Amino acid sequence: MEFIINHTAFKNAVLEVGKIVSEKATLPILSGIKIIAEKDNLTIIGSNSDLVIEKIIPTFSNGSKVVEVLQPGSIVISAKYLSEIVKKLPNEIYFTVNENNRVTIQSDNISSRLNGFSALEYPNLPLMDDTQYIPMASKVLIEMLKQTVFAVSKNETRPVLTGVYFHFSKGQLTCVATNSIRLALSKRVINVRVNCSCVVPSHTINELSKLMNNTSETIDIFISDHYIMFESTMTKLYSRILVGTYPHILRLIPQEFQTTITMERKQLLNGIDRATLFSSVTNNNKVYLELQEGSKIKIRSHGTELGQIEETQYLKGIQGERELSIAVDGGYLIEALKALKEDEISLSFSGPMKPILLKPIGLDDQLHLISPVRT
Amino acid sequence: MEFIINHTAFKNAVLEVGKIVSEKATLPILSGIKIIAEKDNLTIIGSNSDLVIEKIIPTFSNGSKVVEVLQPGSIVISAKYLSEIVKKLPNEIYFTVNENNRVTIQSDNISSRLNGFSALEYPNLPLMDDTQYIPMASKVLIEMLKQTVFAVSKNETRPVLTGVYFHFSKGQLTCVATNSIRLALSKRVINVRVNCSCVVPSHTINELSKLMNNTSETIDIFISDHYIMFESTMTKLYSRILVGTYPHILRLIPQEFQTTITMERKQLLNGIDRATLFSSVTNNNKVYLELQEGSKIKIRSHGTELGQIEETQYLKGIQGERELSIAVDGGYLIEALKALKEDEISLSFSGPMKPILLKPIGLDDQLHLISPVRT
Repeated sequence: MEFIINHTAFKNAVLEVGKIVSEKATLPILSGIKIIAEKDNLTIIGSNSDLVIEKIIPTFSNGSKVVEVLQPGSIVISAKYLSEIVKKLPNEIYFTVNENNRVTIQSDNISSRLNGFSALEYPNLPLMDDTQYIPMASKVLIEMLKQTVFAVSKNETRPVLTGVYFHFSKGQLTCVATNSIRLALSKRVINVRVNCSCVVPSHTINELSKLMNNTSETIDIFISDHYIMFESTMTKLYSRILVGTYPHILRLIPQEFQTTITMERKQLLNGIDRATLFSSVTNNNKVYLELQEGSKIKIRSHGTELGQIEETQYLKGIQGERELSIAVDGGYLIEALKALKEDEISLSFSGPMKPILLKPIGLDDQLHLISPVRT
Repeated sequence: MEFIINHTAFKNAVLEVGKIVSEKATLPILSGIKIIAEKDNLTIIGSNSDLVIEKIIPTFSNGSKVVEVLQPGSIVISAKYLSEIVKKLPNEIYFTVNENNRVTIQSDNISSRLNGFSALEYPNLPLMDDTQYIPMASKVLIEMLKQTVFAVSKNETRPVLTGVYFHFSKGQLTCVATNSIRLALSKRVINVRVNCSCVVPSHTINELSKLMNNTSETIDIFISDHYIMFESTMTKLYSRILVGTYPHILRLIPQEFQTTITMERKQLLNGIDRATLFSSVTNNNKVYLELQEGSKIKIRSHGTELGQIEETQYLKGIQGERELSIAVDGGYLIEALKALKEDEISLSFSGPMKPILLKPIGLDDQLHLISPVRT
């Protein structure tokens, strides 16, 4: 195996793949990166217990030669050391592997040798049915995931809640995350009529958001029994799917409300942020919201020995009953308010023990539910 | 006690003072910030076991009113909560304290209450002799400290080595730091003829560098038996002095060398950085340097089971013997090379067991010594 490669292209691919690989994998070979040199391209693969990333570096890019494969082959090499080496090399890289899996990496007057693993021992990629897939604009998909992933359960007691639920149905994709106290939902129209659902680990979602954040490309989504795969031109991300039945979402979302108020999102966010200053020390970041005179809302925390803080904000509008007093987890409210990007939002209440619903004004593509805290 | 203050001025001063205050101080009052409101200014004081910072906010700044003291007084208030509150307030702050040390902080429709401590219980500032001081350009002082502080001992067995030695003599200030394996020295001419020395904790040096980094002002240095104080227009930093006798420096610096080589600093730095890649895993970051053919230097680490790296760099010049093989701690060499800012530097050797001396070419204001590692 032998190739010459542009330093930047190799470095970027190795670092992107290498950063998901754990140094302390169960088998030493799994803490490595697999490199496959073929006539027309170089493939770089790394994995961890949740996911596999595959990057393809084509021979030519923008008309200039990126990689020249002199002798095809494959090798697995420590992700940590390969990443450190390529970061520190100054120039075009000459990469060779001998019959004993000894790797030599040269650049200018610098020569490094690493002991590799036989690529035959590296696990195969999951097999995917490539006849059916869902194409999505990467910007839309990433936005939907950012609007939901923060709301997954951090607790492993119900593993299925630690992932984001993907539900394809009636020409729509709905993404949902919940920890059973709060819920985030985002939905968009898609161009394919498929019916299927799966739950994707939040770790995968976070990696996908980082990996595909800057592309304006289409991402094709492939789903099999145990895996989901996201593919853009040069990148494939395979992830395992979480096992278990996801809660029935529609049943959880209240349809009628006693009161709906409209507020400036940023002003409310700042107010809740201030209120959690003292609440966080004590119980569940508990923040009290109280409607006043049908035109204002008082935001306060219970306070501690150290002190307390409270403030009053004006509503932009109100519908329904004009009296309400409710306590919520301020941290959850802050996260929902940050996920919403619109200037004005609505909060709907059905009473002090019923969940609060947050939505952008006039849009149905996103909602957040937060159950109150007992006072 | 009652005052109205510009939000930004108050926030900046509180955060700057507050960040040195420990939440877990020995006495609860020491985790507080002392605020003194007088007719003409507001003073804010915070401290930890090494140092005290005092910031003064004058009534007027650049012609506009910054603070209006309606009723003089003083109070001590939790550094953590005061910092968090002022960060989150939007606008001009109205600050009052009642007779029970209850503090109310208001801004727009936001009101926060905190329980304060009586200012009488807060320790007094160290008494300094203000008749003699050394004025220095802050830029010069901060530069000297950055060139040395990294070399202090991280080990408490000889506490005096954990600080930077200030030696004023013959119209010069010399700053030195050493951990007995490597040493950094920086010296400059000063305008005052004083003779005195003291050792300042590295923690103080780091805080001073942050606090005064952006001023182009003069810093006046005051020294008493147990304290050193650095004063700029609005800020005073008091620090305790470390007790103990500092090693006799001049004896440590070799005066004659077998070989002196000249090199490009950045290129050498990158080479050593690469070489430590594998050395760091094993012993003392050991990096081998070997002169070759009187014109090149080979840089390599011993390597591990995982791999190895080596490279050859050209010298810019050489004087003296043309053969040398030496091993040093690559980490120490990297730090010395980073402290030097010049493009070209010299390295002087007196044999494989004698310290290496690094200097900028043609300048005597800075030097670094590094003892070799036994091979």
